[in-house]
Amino acid sequence: MRLIIGNKNYSSWSMRPWVLLKELGIPFEEHKVLFDFAPGSPFYTALQGVGPAGRVPVVVEADGFSVWDSLAIIEYIAEQHPDKAVWPRDARQRAKARALCAEMHAGFGKLRGLCPMNIEADLKALGPKFLAEEPGLVADLARIDAIWSEQLAAHGGPFLFGEFGAADAYFAPVVMRVTRYGLPLSAAAHAYAQRVEQTGAVKAWVADALQEHVWVAEDEPYRTAPTMG
Amino acid sequence: MRLIIGNKNYSSWSMRPWVLLKELGIPFEEHKVLFDFAPGSPFYTALQGVGPAGRVPVVVEADGFSVWDSLAIIEYIAEQHPDKAVWPRDARQRAKARALCAEMHAGFGKLRGLCPMNIEADLKALGPKFLAEEPGLVADLARIDAIWSEQLAAHGGPFLFGEFGAADAYFAPVVMRVTRYGLPLSAAAHAYAQRVEQTGAVKAWVADALQEHVWVAEDEPYRTAPTMG
Ligand SMILES: N[C@@H](CCC(=O)N[C@@H](CS)C(=O)NCC(=O)O)C(=O)O
Ligand SMILES: N[C@@H](CCC(=O)N[C@@H](CS)C(=O)NCC(=O)O)C(=O)O
Repeated sequence: MRLIIGNKNYSSWSMRPWVLLKELGIPFEEHKVLFDFAPGSPFYTALQGVGPAGRVPVVVEADGFSVWDSLAIIEYIAEQHPDKAVWPRDARQRAKARALCAEMHAGFGKLRGLCPMNIEADLKALGPKFLAEEPGLVADLARIDAIWSEQLAAHGGPFLFGEFGAADAYFAPVVMRVTRYGLPLSAAAHAYAQRVEQTGAVKAWVADALQEHVWVAEDEPYRTAPTMG
Repeated sequence: MRLIIGNKNYSSWSMRPWVLLKELGIPFEEHKVLFDFAPGSPFYTALQGVGPAGRVPVVVEADGFSVWDSLAIIEYIAEQHPDKAVWPRDARQRAKARALCAEMHAGFGKLRGLCPMNIEADLKALGPKFLAEEPGLVADLARIDAIWSEQLAAHGGPFLFGEFGAADAYFAPVVMRVTRYGLPLSAAAHAYAQRVEQTGAVKAWVADALQEHVWVAEDEPYRTAPTMG
């Protein structure tokens, strides 16, 4: 199985299935295509015939069969690896985990819009400023904090449903945003964010992201472009 | 099982699981709460304790267990009713159906933003105007047409994966937009839209929507409010 991903520094949707596969020890081949949103770019060429939505991540099997969209990919991984607890084993907990992932998949517009993932960046001054100006961001962050705190209380941690699974992978990019933009959390939610950041899979993704050093203007609303030379 | 939905005229996300349950003949109790986005409204009161994302649809079981978000609800229905082909029986077709639903769940922003579902409205003059002005809408419509046409060609119809299932339910509100806003489709995609509109479930939903006559300002960017009296 090949997983096509975008830049590790920026691509929050790519991070989800990558971190899940890595943390659960499921082997896969990584195929990174750097963002380049010009029509006909190598990015879009790599997606031809396998990613008709024009987005990463995409899974491609040896015979060419492909699955796109992070959530559909996670369901595919779960079906292919019933021995791994991608979703909780209990049907109701599974339904709840799916509700949280689906809520993330289509929601949290303010958090996603104002605080795009940028792992190498230190934007800690911006979070508090945005919170003071944007009630929608306050609401998004409060909901994130409530989800994490309630799940940890219900299962006793260390992760949202006990062991690390799809829901944790789905919130891993949120952990990146919260820490990079200096968004304040309750003590329980903060400790969870730290645990996610310390998993082997997230550490490996972050280490790769920090070595990337590729500047993508579309994903840099706040920093000024480095001078190349 | 109780399904909490919003206004039938407007609530595209509510329509999806409702149409799926109805068309597959799965019994459920409908609980409609009219949109009212004021804090503390009956709408938000109905969601307390069961819909923490603050949105409809939500499924509630007799003992209070709940599942929110249309996509998680559809997965829950599929697990509860393995005798019904909510998803295609073939694993790869199932993965593809999930990819299409997930793509819809998080995508098609221009179509959703410019053409909010409004079943009783005749907005046929607007579609062509928007298409002339908004390349993003052209792209969204082209992708919809490609999805429908390719799936019909692959399976021979009548629905996206042969028999009616989750993917068709997921695109049913798109059928409503396409017809109400006069958005042009290829012959194959147009015939599919007509077939969806003629299913018993969609006909029943539309009939209810047409009897509703409730005006929600937030969902009416184009019509002028009727004079009450
Ligand atoms: N709903 C999709 C979203 C994927 C997405 O937006 N990916 C971004 C990168 S993180 C992308 O490929 N953007 C390219 C483009 O929009 O052209 C998923 O969950 O996989
Ligand atoms: N991702 C959600 C979206 C649900 C959604 O946006 N529902 C709208 C009505 S169609 C809603 O409840 N809006 C109320 C609000 O935003 O306060 C799903 O698939 O169920």
